[in-house]
Amino acid sequence: MTDNNEIYKEIATRIYNLDTKVYENVGSSLGRTFIGTPEKCINDLIRLLCSDNQSYTLRSEMALVANMARTIRDKKVRNTLMREYNNILQLIQANKSSFTSVDILSTDLARLNSSAVKNRISKNDHLIICISRSHGSAGADIGFALADKLRINYYDVEVLNELFKRIDEKKDIDWDATPTDDPLAVSARNISAHHSRLRDFSRYHGLPKADAAFFTESTLLCEMAAKEDFVVIGRCADTILSNNHIPHISIYITAPFEARAKRMMEADNISFKTALKQLIKIDRKHERFYRKYTGKKWGSAINYDLCINSAAYGIDEAVELIMRIINREAK
Amino acid sequence: MTDNNEIYKEIATRIYNLDTKVYENVGSSLGRTFIGTPEKCINDLIRLLCSDNQSYTLRSEMALVANMARTIRDKKVRNTLMREYNNILQLIQANKSSFTSVDILSTDLARLNSSAVKNRISKNDHLIICISRSHGSAGADIGFALADKLRINYYDVEVLNELFKRIDEKKDIDWDATPTDDPLAVSARNISAHHSRLRDFSRYHGLPKADAAFFTESTLLCEMAAKEDFVVIGRCADTILSNNHIPHISIYITAPFEARAKRMMEADNISFKTALKQLIKIDRKHERFYRKYTGKKWGSAINYDLCINSAAYGIDEAVELIMRIINREAK
Repeated sequence: MTDNNEIYKEIATRIYNLDTKVYENVGSSLGRTFIGTPEKCINDLIRLLCSDNQSYTLRSEMALVANMARTIRDKKVRNTLMREYNNILQLIQANKSSFTSVDILSTDLARLNSSAVKNRISKNDHLIICISRSHGSAGADIGFALADKLRINYYDVEVLNELFKRIDEKKDIDWDATPTDDPLAVSARNISAHHSRLRDFSRYHGLPKADAAFFTESTLLCEMAAKEDFVVIGRCADTILSNNHIPHISIYITAPFEARAKRMMEADNISFKTALKQLIKIDRKHERFYRKYTGKKWGSAINYDLCINSAAYGIDEAVELIMRIINREAK
Repeated sequence: MTDNNEIYKEIATRIYNLDTKVYENVGSSLGRTFIGTPEKCINDLIRLLCSDNQSYTLRSEMALVANMARTIRDKKVRNTLMREYNNILQLIQANKSSFTSVDILSTDLARLNSSAVKNRISKNDHLIICISRSHGSAGADIGFALADKLRINYYDVEVLNELFKRIDEKKDIDWDATPTDDPLAVSARNISAHHSRLRDFSRYHGLPKADAAFFTESTLLCEMAAKEDFVVIGRCADTILSNNHIPHISIYITAPFEARAKRMMEADNISFKTALKQLIKIDRKHERFYRKYTGKKWGSAINYDLCINSAAYGIDEAVELIMRIINREAK
């Protein structure tokens, strides 16, 4: 405590002196943050530094001093004072545990977030971008354009269904005879085996067909994630990958109701009333599907790494934005 | 229509031929997207191209061909086929209005979004970052660190209140005598005049004090926006700036309930139960404040350009992420 008092006194004095110098150089009638005798100001600051739940006040006081210092015209003086400001900030951070030092980071979430800056994911992990979207927000269009720009594969419900259909058509072929370097054939073989298991399971345990399909899809997604980069639209892919500890980035794309309805009217040549009805119906369907298989609320920002308002960007710029977010250049 | 038919036939034939070449080079038993006689396949494709509401199917078929082509090992062959794929895509886009050509862009929203890639905002506009945040999500900490990294001013409710207090204390001074090159003094003079007007207005029209304060704050924000770059936390700044046609970027920062509660427990040394109670109470307060002054739902992704899950990034990486989003390097 005595040690801390000494350091707090030093910090308080340096803050007060900085404020004085800033005031002298700005010359504004509003330039002074701490008003009163030096002793009173420094004692007030020490009290702030000692307090555990006033770190917000302290931070705001520091911001006031810095905001003022940044208006100093003389570049040399400004740089000197800003350097002292940074030094004081670091000193506070090193000595005051409640000053911005409690992070919000959830290691569980961040470990799986491949758009984080630091290289938490291994070089062997593939770039997987999961896009959820509200109907009419152009989320699938953004995903398709993004996959093309990154030259990686694109999967949506139709592509996946087509894959299943083909796998199903081939289910009687001798998988062991297919070359093992054909990634799709390897997936197909596994899925086919899984399919048979599921058919048996379903037969004996009464698993509904939709659930069986969902579980098969989950298996396919995890196998693809081990082998290739891709963009996947919907299918609760974010939750499936999280549950299987596979790094990815999860993005929710939405837009204001009117913007989505307007786009549907134009794209499908329908009336506002019809667009509205479809929008509500399809959003609800998505919501039910997501809740059923993830137990989470679809479209709530806390379930994704990021949410993007596509109406504020448009398709092309949303693609550019995601490229910046994942730190990749177009190939 | 006849013209379109000719072009559609060309596109369909080229898609079919591309699929054939991809199939030959992949050699996978699943490699073929279009199965049947060439005539049947090409006619099916023409039907898809003619249809107005099957562009999703067509896009998915194209994605299947591209996904397969990307697995071709021979780089030269792969590049040739992907080039043909891109050419076909462009041909479809040029000739088919319903194929990803209906953008979701809302010019009203995008015009005010300064994180968009294209230079819609003028060079005279300042960089203004509006951060809304749920309690405990470290949104203010992220904003404070971001302002420091960008070397721009930081405003939160305490900094703004302090400004007001000082302006109020100085309200009797002769503003005309203060130098006009002191930005704060100029603001202060305007605010002071505005304050007096509001006092009069309030006296005569019964405007509640909270509303008067909000309107004064709005005036101050717009005046600052004309003069400087800054980060502002809360205060419905996004809506105030939008209503005044001032470009900015609006970001909502949140994190899962448990992550926020855990952080509060650690930062404020309180129990989970207390943290929970405070969280609910403060979130509700924010929500009411936002609804009262904007008429919009606080925390709904459609009201911001972007939402960030701070638990998936942590403070430092959220700052890095926003730097990438706004396309700026640290100064």
